[in-house]
Amino acid sequence: MKYVGKYDELPVTKVADGIERRILKTDHLMMVNVEFTDGPTENPDPFHSHPHEQVSYMIEGEIYLLVGDDEKVYLKAGDHFAIPSGVPHTIQRLTPIVRLIDCFTPLRQDFL
Amino acid sequence: MKYVGKYDELPVTKVADGIERRILKTDHLMMVNVEFTDGPTENPDPFHSHPHEQVSYMIEGEIYLLVGDDEKVYLKAGDHFAIPSGVPHTIQRLTPIVRLIDCFTPLRQDFL
Repeated sequence: MKYVGKYDELPVTKVADGIERRILKTDHLMMVNVEFTDGPTENPDPFHSHPHEQVSYMIEGEIYLLVGDDEKVYLKAGDHFAIPSGVPHTIQRLTPIVRLIDCFTPLRQDFL
Repeated sequence: MKYVGKYDELPVTKVADGIERRILKTDHLMMVNVEFTDGPTENPDPFHSHPHEQVSYMIEGEIYLLVGDDEKVYLKAGDHFAIPSGVPHTIQRLTPIVRLIDCFTPLRQDFL
């Protein structure tokens, strides 16, 4: 059924060692299921930014979220965060496994 | 910190008996954490549609997803679905608790 992305059937993209992505999308909206198995990481990843707006949900694990010049924030499974267009951000993984839902609009063409 | 929506701190909207919403958003992107405690439901809810595009993630529980004239599909925690603009859809809850992440673009003004 074309509207469904069952977890076991979604194509998996290996982004790097210990980082996998599963993607479901409509025309202007992308949901990315990201699994990190490279944690805990000693430091945050380098900051990055993108014109796309982002909202995220923590499925599993614990992270520090860093956004702009703000103090880092501890987040755990069940928490959310939102990144407006163009705002630099990154995470540090605090647990062996971290799983996130990242949603973007418009589509991240660099993920396709 | 303005970018964060910790689960315990997000405002809760009671939509109906056994249905709660927590919302985090940017300018054009809305993430809605929906908790149903009214299941199992005997029948699907009435079909509805909206011009907003939707992508969803099943945090917990089991549902039937019904979209348009397609056969209903069984989904469980970890699965995803995507609803293009204007396509009628609904769910039936199969478990006492169902928790979903629903993302929309543009913003659902009717949720604010």
